[in-house]
Amino acid sequence: MTNLIYAAVAIGVIGLLYAAVLYHKVQKAPKGNERMREIQSFIKEGAMAFLKKEYKILAFFTLLVFLVLGLILPLGKNVSSLNAWLTAVNFFIGAVLSALAGFFGMRAATSANSAVANAAKDHGMNKALSIAFNGGSVMGFCVVGLGLLGLSIVYLLEANLPGYNPNEGIQDVINGFGLGASSIALFARVGGGIYTKAADVGADLVGKVEMGIPEDDPRNPSVIADNVGDNVGDVAGMGADLFESYVGSIIAAITLGVSMQMPLSDTNNPLYNIVESFASYEESRVAFALFPLLICGIGILATIFGTLFIGSGEKISPHKSLKIGTYITAFITVVASIALSFFIFNSFRPFAAILSGLLCGILIGIFTEIYTSSEHHYVKRIADQSKTGAATNIICGISVGMVSTALPVLIIAIGTLLAYYFANLYGIALASVGMLSIVGNTIAIDAYGPIADNAGGIAQMADLPHEVREITDKLDSVGNTTAAIGKGFAISSAALTALALYASYAQVADIKMIDILNPSVVVGMLVGAMLPFLFSALAMSSVGKAANVMIKEVRRQFKEKPGIFEGTEKPEYAKCIEISTASAIKEMTLPSIIAILAPILTGLILGKNALGGLLAGSLVSGIMLAIFMANSGGAWDNAKKTIEQGQGKGSFEHSASVVGDTVGDPFKDTAGPSLNILIKLMTIVALVFASIFGNGIFG
Amino acid sequence: MTNLIYAAVAIGVIGLLYAAVLYHKVQKAPKGNERMREIQSFIKEGAMAFLKKEYKILAFFTLLVFLVLGLILPLGKNVSSLNAWLTAVNFFIGAVLSALAGFFGMRAATSANSAVANAAKDHGMNKALSIAFNGGSVMGFCVVGLGLLGLSIVYLLEANLPGYNPNEGIQDVINGFGLGASSIALFARVGGGIYTKAADVGADLVGKVEMGIPEDDPRNPSVIADNVGDNVGDVAGMGADLFESYVGSIIAAITLGVSMQMPLSDTNNPLYNIVESFASYEESRVAFALFPLLICGIGILATIFGTLFIGSGEKISPHKSLKIGTYITAFITVVASIALSFFIFNSFRPFAAILSGLLCGILIGIFTEIYTSSEHHYVKRIADQSKTGAATNIICGISVGMVSTALPVLIIAIGTLLAYYFANLYGIALASVGMLSIVGNTIAIDAYGPIADNAGGIAQMADLPHEVREITDKLDSVGNTTAAIGKGFAISSAALTALALYASYAQVADIKMIDILNPSVVVGMLVGAMLPFLFSALAMSSVGKAANVMIKEVRRQFKEKPGIFEGTEKPEYAKCIEISTASAIKEMTLPSIIAILAPILTGLILGKNALGGLLAGSLVSGIMLAIFMANSGGAWDNAKKTIEQGQGKGSFEHSASVVGDTVGDPFKDTAGPSLNILIKLMTIVALVFASIFGNGIFG
Repeated sequence: MTNLIYAAVAIGVIGLLYAAVLYHKVQKAPKGNERMREIQSFIKEGAMAFLKKEYKILAFFTLLVFLVLGLILPLGKNVSSLNAWLTAVNFFIGAVLSALAGFFGMRAATSANSAVANAAKDHGMNKALSIAFNGGSVMGFCVVGLGLLGLSIVYLLEANLPGYNPNEGIQDVINGFGLGASSIALFARVGGGIYTKAADVGADLVGKVEMGIPEDDPRNPSVIADNVGDNVGDVAGMGADLFESYVGSIIAAITLGVSMQMPLSDTNNPLYNIVESFASYEESRVAFALFPLLICGIGILATIFGTLFIGSGEKISPHKSLKIGTYITAFITVVASIALSFFIFNSFRPFAAILSGLLCGILIGIFTEIYTSSEHHYVKRIADQSKTGAATNIICGISVGMVSTALPVLIIAIGTLLAYYFANLYGIALASVGMLSIVGNTIAIDAYGPIADNAGGIAQMADLPHEVREITDKLDSVGNTTAAIGKGFAISSAALTALALYASYAQVADIKMIDILNPSVVVGMLVGAMLPFLFSALAMSSVGKAANVMIKEVRRQFKEKPGIFEGTEKPEYAKCIEISTASAIKEMTLPSIIAILAPILTGLILGKNALGGLLAGSLVSGIMLAIFMANSGGAWDNAKKTIEQGQGKGSFEHSASVVGDTVGDPFKDTAGPSLNILIKLMTIVALVFASIFGNGIFG
Repeated sequence: MTNLIYAAVAIGVIGLLYAAVLYHKVQKAPKGNERMREIQSFIKEGAMAFLKKEYKILAFFTLLVFLVLGLILPLGKNVSSLNAWLTAVNFFIGAVLSALAGFFGMRAATSANSAVANAAKDHGMNKALSIAFNGGSVMGFCVVGLGLLGLSIVYLLEANLPGYNPNEGIQDVINGFGLGASSIALFARVGGGIYTKAADVGADLVGKVEMGIPEDDPRNPSVIADNVGDNVGDVAGMGADLFESYVGSIIAAITLGVSMQMPLSDTNNPLYNIVESFASYEESRVAFALFPLLICGIGILATIFGTLFIGSGEKISPHKSLKIGTYITAFITVVASIALSFFIFNSFRPFAAILSGLLCGILIGIFTEIYTSSEHHYVKRIADQSKTGAATNIICGISVGMVSTALPVLIIAIGTLLAYYFANLYGIALASVGMLSIVGNTIAIDAYGPIADNAGGIAQMADLPHEVREITDKLDSVGNTTAAIGKGFAISSAALTALALYASYAQVADIKMIDILNPSVVVGMLVGAMLPFLFSALAMSSVGKAANVMIKEVRRQFKEKPGIFEGTEKPEYAKCIEISTASAIKEMTLPSIIAILAPILTGLILGKNALGGLLAGSLVSGIMLAIFMANSGGAWDNAKKTIEQGQGKGSFEHSASVVGDTVGDPFKDTAGPSLNILIKLMTIVALVFASIFGNGIFG
C-alpha cells in the first residue's frame, strides 16, 4: 500500500511534463508581426515586473514567518522543536511551489496572447482557441502538478526521516504547506485584484470617458497596465487561490484521515467497517492518507485526456468545446474513483463522498451561469431595469446577487450532509478533494479568458483586420461566462475546503466540541461574521485609492505630452505599470494583516473555542458575501453587454448599465475573490497555531 | 417581593395615562387653516386605510396561528393542553397590544403633523418641536406602557390561575406573547417598508423627474401616499419593531431567570451567591422574573421625566434639546437601577449587566452618527467620490456601510461578554432589557421625524410662508440624523434581544450544547446565514414591483386628467394610497412565509440542534447586513444633502448622489429594518415550537 505514494509522485511529474510540453508549444507558436511581438513583450515585461516586486516582498514575509513558526510553535503544548521546524520547512515549500506555479503560468499566458491573435489572423477560430486553451492549461497543470508532487514528496520524505513517524506527526507539520500556499494566495489575490481594477478604472475613466478614445487604444498610457492586470488578476490570482484550495483540501483529508480516533469505538460511524477491514490501524491510516493524493492523481490524468478534445472539432463552438472537455474529464474521474475506492477500501463510501463534492462543483457552475449569463432572465431583468436609470439597475443587480446565494448554499449544505453521511468528517474533506480533483481543467478554462482578452487587445493595438477582432471577441465572450463559473467554483471549493480545514482544526486543537451557547463562541462568531464585510470594504476602497493615483498619472501624461493623443509621441506605459504595482502592493498590507492577526489574537485572548466561533462566523458570512459579489458583478457585466447588443452604446439604458458594470468590477474581481482567501487563510492560520492557544481569558 | 408586580402594573398604567395626556394635547392643538386640515385628514385617512387593511389580514392570520398553537403544540414533548392554549392566549394578547400601540401611535402622528406646521407658523421653532415630539411620544409611551402592562398582567393572571404554577410554566407560555408581538412587527415592518418606498419612488420618478414638479406638490397624485408612507414606515413599522424587541428582551430575561437550573451547582457562576442569599429558590425565581419588569418600569418613569425637558429651553437647538432629554432619561435609569439591584439582590451584578446594555445602545448611537452624519468624514468622502460619477458614489457608499459594521459589532461583543461575566446568560437578557428600558424615548425621537417631515409637506401643499418651511426643514433634518441613530439602536437591540431569546431557546428546548463541529449544525448555520440575503433581495425586488404599479397609476392620472397638471383638476389621491396598500400587503407575503417556515422546517427535518445553527447563522449575517444597509443608506442620503448645500441641485455630482440616495432608500427603509424582524421572529418561532422538534433525520 505504502508504495502507492510513488504513483502520486509519478503523476505529479507527468502533470508537470505535460505543462512543459504545452509551454513549449505556446512558446514556439508564431507571435505575429513586429508590432504584435512588441506589445506582447510590453505585457509580458509588465507582468513579470509585478511578479518580481511581489515576490521580493513575499521572500521577506516568508522568511519572517519561517522563523516565527520555528521559534514560536515550540512554546505551545506538545510541539517538539523538530515538528516546529518541519512545519516551517513545509511552509517554505508550499510558498515556493505556489510562487513557481504563478511564475510559469504567467509566462505562458503572456506569451500565448499574441500567438492567439496571430492564429486568429492566419488560421481562424479553432487554432486560436487551441492555443489560448494551451496557454491557460500551463497554469492549470503547474498548479495540480506542483501541488500533488509537493505534497507527495513531503509525505514521502517525512516517512523516511530517521526517528520520525509521519503517521504521528504529519497532521501537524503538513499544515505548514497549506499556510505557505495560503500566504502566496493572499498576496496574489488581494494584490492582483487591486492591480487589475486600478488599471482598468484608470484606463476607462481617463481614456474612454475623458479623452474619448476607444478601448485598447495604444495611445492610452494605462492600456498595457490594463492588459497586464487581466493576467495578474485572473491568471496569477485565480491560480494561487485554487492552488491553496487544492492543497488545503488534500491536507484536510490527510489530517482527518490520519488523526481519526482509532480504534473507532462507534459502530455507527460509517467508516467503522472500513477501518475494521484493515490488517492494522497503521495500515488503515496510510490508506486514508494516500487516497486523496491518488484521487488527485486520477484527476490530473483525466484532465490531460480531456484537454485533447478542446479545439479539435471543426464544427463545435468554443463554449461547447470547453464544456465537452470538462465533462469528459469529470466522467473519467468518476469512473476511476469508483475503482480506486473499491481497490483501497473495498467500499463505495469514500467514492460517494468524492462524488458529492464533484457534483456540487458542477451544479454550482450551472447555477452561476443561470444568474450571470445573458441567456437567462436575471440578467435580462437587470437590463430591463436600466430603462429607469442607474439606481434601479444597481438595486436590481444587488438583489439578483443576493438571491443567487440561496441555491449554491443549499447545494453545499446537501453535499456536506451527504459526504458526512457516507464517510464522516473525512467525507467532507473528500468532497472537497472530489470537487478540486479536476481543478486543472477549471484553471485552464479560467486562465484562457485573459489570454483571449489580451489577444483582442493586441489585435486592436496592432491594427489587425476586423475579422481577427471578431474571432478574439467571440473567444473572449466565452471567457466571460467561464470566468463567472470559475468564480462560483472557486468560492464553493473555498467553502468546502474551509469546512474540511475547520474540522481538522478541531482535531488538531483537541477540541471535542464548539458550543454556540458559550458566549465566547458567540462573540467569536459575531466578530468572525463581521470580518468579511470589513475586508471587502478595505479591498474596495483600496481599488478606489489605487485608481485615483492611476487617473492622475494618465492625465499628467496626456497633459505634458500632447503628442500622445495625436499618436506622434509614445506614452510611458512602464510608468503606469509601476504605479499599479506599487499601489497594489501598498494597499494589500492592511487587509493582509487583519487576515493573519484576527485568528491569532482571538485564539490568544478569547481561546481556542472562541476562535472556532470566529472561523465559523467568517466562513458563513464570507461565503454569502463572496457569492453575492461575484454574481452581482457578473450579472451587471452581462446586462451591459445585452444592452450593447440591443439598444447600443450611447443609449440612456447603456449609461445606466455602465454604472452597474463599474460597481460590479471591484465586487467580482477584487473584494469577492479575496474573501475565498480570507476564510481559508484564517482557518489554516488557526490550524498551524492551534497548539499555542489556550482557553482564553473567559475560559 | 411578589407584590412588586403591582408596581409594574401601576407604572404600565402611568405610561398609558401619560400617552393619553399627550394624545389629548396633540388633538387639541390648533390644526391651522382649512387647507391644512384637509391635507391632514387625507394623510390620516390614508394611514388608517392602510392599518385597517393590514389589521384585517392580521386578524385572519392571528386566528390561524392561535388555533395552530392550541392544537399543534400539545403534540410536542411535555406540553399540556393547558399550556398550549395559554400560549395561544398569550400570543393573542401580544398581537392585539402591538396592534393597539400602532393604532394610537399612528393616530397621534397623523394628527400632529398639521399642528406642527401651524405652530411653526404662529409660534416658531420651540412650540413646533414640542408638538412634534409629543406626537411621537404617544407611540413611545403606548409601546412601553402596553408592553409592560401586558406582560405584568399576563404574569399576574397566570400566578393566580387555579392549579397553575407560573414559576413552572411561565417560561413556556409567555413566549406566545413575544410571538404575537413578532407577527405584528413582521407585517408592520416589511409591509410598511414596501409601502413607504413604493410611494416615495412613485412620487419622485413620475412627479419630480418626468413632470418636473417639486417635492410635496399637491398636483402629484402620489404625494399623499408618500406622506402616509412616512408614517407607515417610521412610526408604525419602527414602533412594532421596537415593541417586539422590548417584550422579547423582558421575556428572555424572565425565561432565563425562572428556568435557571436550581440549585446552581457551579460556585463559579456569578449568580451563585445571589441565589444562595434568598430564603428559598422559589423566592429567588420570583426576584429574577420581577427584576426586568421593574427595570422597565424605572425606564418609563425616567422617560416621562426626560420628556419634560424637550422643547422647553428657548435658546437650545432641536438636536441638542432631544439629546438632553435622552441623557437625562438614561442617567435617571442608571441611578434607579443601582438602587433596585441592591434592593432586590443585594448585589451590583444585575445592575452591571443592565448598564452594559444601556452603554452599548448609547455607544452604537454615537458610532452610527459618525458613519451617517454630514459632519464626519465618511459622508464627506462619499460626496467627494460623487465627482467621478454614480459608480464611485455607489462603491464608496457600500464600502462605508461595510466598514461601519466593525465597531458596533465589537461593542455588542464586549457588551455581551461583560453582561455574561456579571450575570451569566441572565445577564445577556438583562443587557438587552437595559438597552431597551429607555426605548420609549427612542421611539418618540424616531416617530418625531415623519411628523416633522409631514409638517413640511403640509406647509408646502398649503402654500404657507417660506419661513414656516424653513422651520419644518430644520426640524426634519434633525429627524434624519435621529432616524439613523434610531435604526442603529433598533438593530443592536434586535441583536441583543435575539441573543437573549436564543439562550432561552436552548433552555426551553433542553439543549445542553449546540456543537458547530456537528455537520447538521454547520449546515443549519450556512442556510441561516443565507436567509438574510434572500430576505433582503425579496424585500428590495418587492419595492421595485410595487413602485412600478404606482408609477403606472401616476402616469395614467396625468394622462387621463390633464387638468391635474394645470391645477384645475384634483388628483385621485385615494387611488394611489390604495395601490401602495395593496402592493405592500401582497408583496410581504413571500418573505413572511419564509421567515415563519424556515425555522419550523429546519427544526422538523434537521432537528433542534441544526435549528440552533440556523438561528446563529441568521443572527450573525443578519446583523451585519442590517447595519451595512442602514448605514450605507443613511450615508448616501446625507451625502446628497451635503452636495445640495455645496454644488447645488443640477450639478454633475448631485445627479450621481441622487443615484446613491435612491439605492439607499430600500436599503435603509425596507430591507435593512426588515432584517431586525427576521432574526427576532425566527428565534421566537423556534422558542415557541421548541417542544415539537426532535433530533432530525441525521440525529
